Amino acid sequence: MDNWISANGPDSDIIISSRIRLARNLDNVPFPTMMDDKQAEKVVDDVGKAILDSHSVLAGHFKLVRIKDVQQLDRQMLVEEYLSSPDLVKNDKSGALLMNDDNTVSIMINEEDHVRIQCLAPGLQLREAWELADKVDDLLEENLSYAYDEQLGYLTTCPTNVGTGMRASLMMHLPALAMTNNIREVLHAVGRVGITVRGIYGEGSEVKGDIYQISNQISLGQSEDDIINNIIAVARQIIDKERKARQVLMDNGRLQLEDRVYRSLGIFTNARMLNTEEALELISNLRLGVSLGILKDMDLKLLNQLLFMIQPAHVQKHKGRELQPLERDIIRAELIHEKIRR
Amino acid sequence: MDNWISANGPDSDIIISSRIRLARNLDNVPFPTMMDDKQAEKVVDDVGKAILDSHSVLAGHFKLVRIKDVQQLDRQMLVEEYLSSPDLVKNDKSGALLMNDDNTVSIMINEEDHVRIQCLAPGLQLREAWELADKVDDLLEENLSYAYDEQLGYLTTCPTNVGTGMRASLMMHLPALAMTNNIREVLHAVGRVGITVRGIYGEGSEVKGDIYQISNQISLGQSEDDIINNIIAVARQIIDKERKARQVLMDNGRLQLEDRVYRSLGIFTNARMLNTEEALELISNLRLGVSLGILKDMDLKLLNQLLFMIQPAHVQKHKGRELQPLERDIIRAELIHEKIRR
Repeated sequence: MDNWISANGPDSDIIISSRIRLARNLDNVPFPTMMDDKQAEKVVDDVGKAILDSHSVLAGHFKLVRIKDVQQLDRQMLVEEYLSSPDLVKNDKSGALLMNDDNTVSIMINEEDHVRIQCLAPGLQLREAWELADKVDDLLEENLSYAYDEQLGYLTTCPTNVGTGMRASLMMHLPALAMTNNIREVLHAVGRVGITVRGIYGEGSEVKGDIYQISNQISLGQSEDDIINNIIAVARQIIDKERKARQVLMDNGRLQLEDRVYRSLGIFTNARMLNTEEALELISNLRLGVSLGILKDMDLKLLNQLLFMIQPAHVQKHKGRELQPLERDIIRAELIHEKIRR
Repeated sequence: MDNWISANGPDSDIIISSRIRLARNLDNVPFPTMMDDKQAEKVVDDVGKAILDSHSVLAGHFKLVRIKDVQQLDRQMLVEEYLSSPDLVKNDKSGALLMNDDNTVSIMINEEDHVRIQCLAPGLQLREAWELADKVDDLLEENLSYAYDEQLGYLTTCPTNVGTGMRASLMMHLPALAMTNNIREVLHAVGRVGITVRGIYGEGSEVKGDIYQISNQISLGQSEDDIINNIIAVARQIIDKERKARQVLMDNGRLQLEDRVYRSLGIFTNARMLNTEEALELISNLRLGVSLGILKDMDLKLLNQLLFMIQPAHVQKHKGRELQPLERDIIRAELIHEKIRR
């Protein structure tokens, strides 16, 4: 399975990435909210060893990173690349991360739960991501004993995760539904079948750049396959509606669309200052342009890279130091020029 | 004297062009509002001969064009290039135009007055334009007898032109005064010293692209030199204020200014549709960018050419036929791309 950035998956023009997250807790340790430092440290050790000491091929590609050893900017970069949650990188004491070398799997340790396995795949590949997550889960379970109830399933800190402990989510790019003013209706319908809609950086984040994250609301009372099948069925409908909306735009306003795409390209490559929000809006237009064959010299992979490269920590890392917001906007514009020129 | 498009004149970064217009009438023919077709035709013949039959070097470069022989689009192009007034090209019966080959002089025949001599120069060259207009006036007077009153001066159809029959005007580009919100105050002050402010296409035209035309309100009771000196004195003050405003922008917001200039460049060279108004706004930003050394690969001459190339008739002429407004916007964008690429 490729990294999500490759855009090398089914329906990658609309589905940026598929993500499976499994919440797990060790059965002989209090939950993260209740444990002491020593217990927390032991969780890191035990989970780390479960992977790193394994002789399986899968485990061979992992490295363990303790949050306390990671500098602030680098922590934020992990979040911007979807390898860590914002909460985990705040856990200076006992937070840790196991990542494989192509960043398709990251295991968060001592986040809200002891263990959160996350698998990311390009395009609509929830089943593939689930298979991979399941393998990682099995690997951990060979050496660890999970908190599990025959009746309820996996036990988690937050009741919404009890059961499968699974959250299946898709990052969807829906510019045509937004342009044709159909997005609200579509998202409203999604809410009625147990699916939550969020922005690009999860819970509480605003929708920017026409990127919507959909995921299951609850994980109890359904099997993993049920959850995944439900999300996929909904995604298929949304994909269908987005494609139809794109076709309507092409049929009824191709010129206006081309104009919008090329103006965005002009601003994207010429502006001397760009804030994150505007950059995301422009990337959204360029993405649509690439998907519809309007822009030929650009590809979705480049635009996926730009999606996180334009984020604040990446921009600051590029310059090697923390920057004021105005400086960031200037460096962001420079960074885009360099990236596009290459 | 160069054509105004060359931008080869003093203060060409702010003063796009200087224009002198002299209104004259023949003393043995009723004024245009009162004359019959035969008389009108004789005016064309007499004025035409006065120039074309002359053996002076100056006269050798003129050609006579009768409005009735000019196609609609070409008529509008004459207006867009400032060689004719909008009224003259409507005079299908007896309107005519004498133009020299570098378009620095045009003589309108049977406009509001029998004769209107117009000289256009690049930059702040009102005196130079007046000298040239005076020579053309002398040339005509060798063969024609003007309606002239010892007391009043030259007699004209509209009383505001009686006296010298002169209108001296300057096309000024004042983007920094506009951006710093000082333009109203400056223009208000100008109005109090007998000077009128208009838009890019004279009387009744809106100000677009930060281009303002200033000219004397009356031509009676002042000598030509007085009129010119007054306009130049006012222009010097405006130039000074515009330069100071530009300096303020460079000192306090250079980055914002560069951002604005480069975004304009990006849109100008990438948009697939551009209406006249937006094109003028973008040209205004580019002009400012060139004047301040922000844009190095462009020059004022190119931008002067674009000032009329983007006008509706020129856009239609480029395609060889009349176009609907939407088509015009598309062809305008194409035309700009071609011109800039070259």
